[in-house]
Amino acid sequence: MKLSGLKNPFNRSSSKSSSEQESDLGFGTGITTAGQRLINRDGSFNIVRRGMGAWRPYQSLVEMSWTHFLAVVALFYIATNALFAVTFVFIGVDSLSGAPAGYSLAEDFVFAFFFSIQTFTTVGYGAISPTSPASNIIASIDALVGLMSFALATGLLFARFSKPKASILFSNSAVIRPYKDTPYNSFQFQIVNRRNNRLINLLAKVTISWVEDMNGEKARRFALLELERDRVFLFPLNWVIVHVIDKDSPLWGKNEEEIRAMEPEFIALIQAYDETFAQDVHANSSYTCDEVWWNRRFERMYFPDENGQTILELERVHHIVALEEEE
Amino acid sequence: MKLSGLKNPFNRSSSKSSSEQESDLGFGTGITTAGQRLINRDGSFNIVRRGMGAWRPYQSLVEMSWTHFLAVVALFYIATNALFAVTFVFIGVDSLSGAPAGYSLAEDFVFAFFFSIQTFTTVGYGAISPTSPASNIIASIDALVGLMSFALATGLLFARFSKPKASILFSNSAVIRPYKDTPYNSFQFQIVNRRNNRLINLLAKVTISWVEDMNGEKARRFALLELERDRVFLFPLNWVIVHVIDKDSPLWGKNEEEIRAMEPEFIALIQAYDETFAQDVHANSSYTCDEVWWNRRFERMYFPDENGQTILELERVHHIVALEEEE
Amino acid sequence: MKLSGLKNPFNRSSSKSSSEQESDLGFGTGITTAGQRLINRDGSFNIVRRGMGAWRPYQSLVEMSWTHFLAVVALFYIATNALFAVTFVFIGVDSLSGAPAGYSLAEDFVFAFFFSIQTFTTVGYGAISPTSPASNIIASIDALVGLMSFALATGLLFARFSKPKASILFSNSAVIRPYKDTPYNSFQFQIVNRRNNRLINLLAKVTISWVEDMNGEKARRFALLELERDRVFLFPLNWVIVHVIDKDSPLWGKNEEEIRAMEPEFIALIQAYDETFAQDVHANSSYTCDEVWWNRRFERMYFPDENGQTILELERVHHIVALEEEE
Amino acid sequence: MKLSGLKNPFNRSSSKSSSEQESDLGFGTGITTAGQRLINRDGSFNIVRRGMGAWRPYQSLVEMSWTHFLAVVALFYIATNALFAVTFVFIGVDSLSGAPAGYSLAEDFVFAFFFSIQTFTTVGYGAISPTSPASNIIASIDALVGLMSFALATGLLFARFSKPKASILFSNSAVIRPYKDTPYNSFQFQIVNRRNNRLINLLAKVTISWVEDMNGEKARRFALLELERDRVFLFPLNWVIVHVIDKDSPLWGKNEEEIRAMEPEFIALIQAYDETFAQDVHANSSYTCDEVWWNRRFERMYFPDENGQTILELERVHHIVALEEEE
Repeated sequence: MKLSGLKNPFNRSSSKSSSEQESDLGFGTGITTAGQRLINRDGSFNIVRRGMGAWRPYQSLVEMSWTHFLAVVALFYIATNALFAVTFVFIGVDSLSGAPAGYSLAEDFVFAFFFSIQTFTTVGYGAISPTSPASNIIASIDALVGLMSFALATGLLFARFSKPKASILFSNSAVIRPYKDTPYNSFQFQIVNRRNNRLINLLAKVTISWVEDMNGEKARRFALLELERDRVFLFPLNWVIVHVIDKDSPLWGKNEEEIRAMEPEFIALIQAYDETFAQDVHANSSYTCDEVWWNRRFERMYFPDENGQTILELERVHHIVALEEEE
Repeated sequence: MKLSGLKNPFNRSSSKSSSEQESDLGFGTGITTAGQRLINRDGSFNIVRRGMGAWRPYQSLVEMSWTHFLAVVALFYIATNALFAVTFVFIGVDSLSGAPAGYSLAEDFVFAFFFSIQTFTTVGYGAISPTSPASNIIASIDALVGLMSFALATGLLFARFSKPKASILFSNSAVIRPYKDTPYNSFQFQIVNRRNNRLINLLAKVTISWVEDMNGEKARRFALLELERDRVFLFPLNWVIVHVIDKDSPLWGKNEEEIRAMEPEFIALIQAYDETFAQDVHANSSYTCDEVWWNRRFERMYFPDENGQTILELERVHHIVALEEEE
Repeated sequence: MKLSGLKNPFNRSSSKSSSEQESDLGFGTGITTAGQRLINRDGSFNIVRRGMGAWRPYQSLVEMSWTHFLAVVALFYIATNALFAVTFVFIGVDSLSGAPAGYSLAEDFVFAFFFSIQTFTTVGYGAISPTSPASNIIASIDALVGLMSFALATGLLFARFSKPKASILFSNSAVIRPYKDTPYNSFQFQIVNRRNNRLINLLAKVTISWVEDMNGEKARRFALLELERDRVFLFPLNWVIVHVIDKDSPLWGKNEEEIRAMEPEFIALIQAYDETFAQDVHANSSYTCDEVWWNRRFERMYFPDENGQTILELERVHHIVALEEEE
Repeated sequence: MKLSGLKNPFNRSSSKSSSEQESDLGFGTGITTAGQRLINRDGSFNIVRRGMGAWRPYQSLVEMSWTHFLAVVALFYIATNALFAVTFVFIGVDSLSGAPAGYSLAEDFVFAFFFSIQTFTTVGYGAISPTSPASNIIASIDALVGLMSFALATGLLFARFSKPKASILFSNSAVIRPYKDTPYNSFQFQIVNRRNNRLINLLAKVTISWVEDMNGEKARRFALLELERDRVFLFPLNWVIVHVIDKDSPLWGKNEEEIRAMEPEFIALIQAYDETFAQDVHANSSYTCDEVWWNRRFERMYFPDENGQTILELERVHHIVALEEEE
């Protein structure tokens, strides 16, 4: 009954935790939707949440696209001022100095709308200004709402920008190829940092999920793949992450057909410390068989230029070539 | 005398720390208030702090409810401007252009109040403007205070929104039921992520607190419960947290009556890394006997829909059903 | 030569690191300033930095007192606008509408000063406005500087408020008293959380520093004190931190006079996770002999009230009483 | 095949990780650009990124110099308002009150430009104000863009200031000198905290990289250097980081000429917890042979003043003197 790590549950580095436990990604074995991947290429879950989810306006405003965000801002700007305009029209625009003769409601609305904007933005030219207590009260609320709205926008803009994003680029393809001069095969993919910011203390974790017959019915199994190297301290160039298919590997002794038959999904989790944001960042991705190539290798990504300066060519992260001999 | 972990006190993962130490929740054995729970369902302590507590305006403004917060903002807005209005009236509103004939103090106050708001919000229509040095000085202070207030409001709004909140939902009930096909009983509750944000690296810790007779007088004891699994790396679905009642468990060999007699409280602490806020978040809850059900089980929460897409139904986190056979 | 922990330098929890290394506080043995404490009661170093220190305006503006901060703001507000006023006077206030006849420079300056403030704060009543290109250009700069200044103030206010502060209160005194029913003596002090925010995962580290004769000359030595308990997961009440003076303790077998002769300083470091700020916070303090009392004990800090509700009385953290018998 | 740490990849403190793995800085052995250093003195990589790098405006605006940043702000301010001015001129400045007779486009542009600035900054004197729907609409957009721009500027200013920067100063030179009274040589450099902020929990990691002949062709090798002490808990004074050149060191038994022939680069990584920013900060630097001095030592940096107060003289961090005898 004794599982490892129980004595120190908040220990992220229990040196005793069993592989079984480590390899659990929280999917359980219930998910057997054949053909469906668990993790999308962008790292999000391929699962739909239903019911009383907690709608978080802040979160969605921070995570929506920029175009979407600016549209929301513009819409809010127009709607709010239209609302105030209606109120001004309701109490009568003659309670505003410089109001038009007002032959039509439309005219009044337009007039009140622009006055509201001048108040909401605190521009307050003054060509128009409230003259009655009623209009003064509404103008006061208008200005307060405006300032609070822009206070909010400030926070949102800051949050949107300062949200740390791992700038790690995963190779589109993974390869299965002989490992160095050993008799072993190996599963390999590579990552690279797109930005010039410094990522340090990189850690990699690769889990394989596959479908297996368990007494008759299909069940999804998981296993943690041992990596030739699971950490680097600096990340100046590309990093090829290598799982050697030895006897401890679930892929041991299987040929391409057998592996494809397992419907495997290789789930990669990368953790790094981003010095720009002074925070840990995470990047995830997954590879299904459609993205794995046999007997291919990754091309070299960096070269010295004429001055001996090392050049890293980012787009080459996806380049794989047929395997003739080791580079 | 040698307790574990002493050589590296800032080590959160001492692999040697004794269960005794681990299980200490800082309540000591002094708390014997029978019938009272230690931790409220929302995770807060059931304890009242008295005396020279450090009043932290920022903290309370960040943690109060939205309605309360907006009320404070509105009140501050009105009070501050009323104060400035009084000052303007005091030095005489005739030091402001466009002042009314001023038959009454009330009229003057209203006039000065709205002028103050126009200054405080920096709208400054200009229909009213300071004409004397005195009124200019006050107006200058008014505008400065206004801008600083809105600067503060900006920070508060941002803090309120960006405050990371664990979106973890605890099942209202816990169950005690046979564990799989073993002769053992088990204590179980489940959690689910309400939001679509990604929580990773989840860690669970469950402590039991119960009342015991120690040489005559009642004392409260604590023990850390071993969990079948105390961590998951991803949290796509629900997570049933299971303590198997084996001989190491304080509940070993006890029947429902005996357990109820212990007045047990099961205190759950969850830690996770929230990728939206790029921070660790914590969620806590506790279960007293009133929330524990014998021989019940949790219903399955996720199903494939017609397209084989997996659907997670959040409201089912609370669903427990009588136990017939294993699902 | 092999010191522990060398294989994994970024490991804060090296399970092999020697006490010698752990106990090093970075003071080295060179500091022998007798009578002077190393750490002030508030946790700051008793050391003066000289020479090319990096002056950090932001840092000092964040860390200075509130009165000091507001004084800086007010001063900046006046100085900046005075500067702009001078410029307006220089180009001639007749380039501003509504300028006075201008019999005196003083009059012009006052007029320009208040106009600058109306621009700097973007109030812009309009009773005064720039009429020439020159005055328009200066006004444009004035408004830009104003807005950037308030943008800065916003950031500063937010930083000042959101700066996490450990709300941990150290007892003013420490005690040396028999440990429970053992023959051992013990060194004890206690801490309490002043706020209602939740601190979790508390860790304590206590180091002793004392002066010793090393072949003739005085040298300062350091040792880590083993604690009866160096962590609690929750911090609902007070926490008495206890070092048992056993044969591993530098204080072993010493009586009060001998201990006083060592000129000891007990340096306490507390680490905790603050759920309000979602960050680790640290609190430090130190006790010299003048703050240590022999054969005293801490009074109980919490009591059940009439309703069985537990009340924690914060001011009692400092209460020590003569020792008759164990509470 | 089994490498250490594989069972717990997200474990930053794997107690089993092999030196080989630890010492990997992610450069691989491919980099053999003789004479070129891998890490610049300021800690940045000596590598050029090419191709589809992710351009991050926020990141660059946060990291550019202050002069550069203010230039961008000023440029943006002028360009944006010029754009709006053109639009106003296009729809005709006669749609603005107080427009000049308008003999020339230039005159109109200047007039519209200053009006746009009054709107963009929300000063809105009112001497000029929009009179037609068209001009009102543009003015409304103008004010919105202005407010959003300053919201953004606020966030940027805050980010620029609050970006944690390790204030750790590395000595310009490193020394190689006998270690204490041992027969061993040692590599030493020192660091000091320039600011008064508290850095705690300092950790040091030093890696050496050198060029070696591997079956004919040059290859770059890496090794982690064991440190006499790789951590201090407080950092009140300077910290001399010492690698003892014993038989486990790649420098073992080599004289100055042999060491220079290795083209070694000593790469230092420091991690610390900054209490002002409540975050971990990192500082890196590297020493090539040109910065290493044989048989020199660092001068003492701190002295007691007349009052017995300890004074730390920062500029002395770079002072090295010829070695006569131990200080």
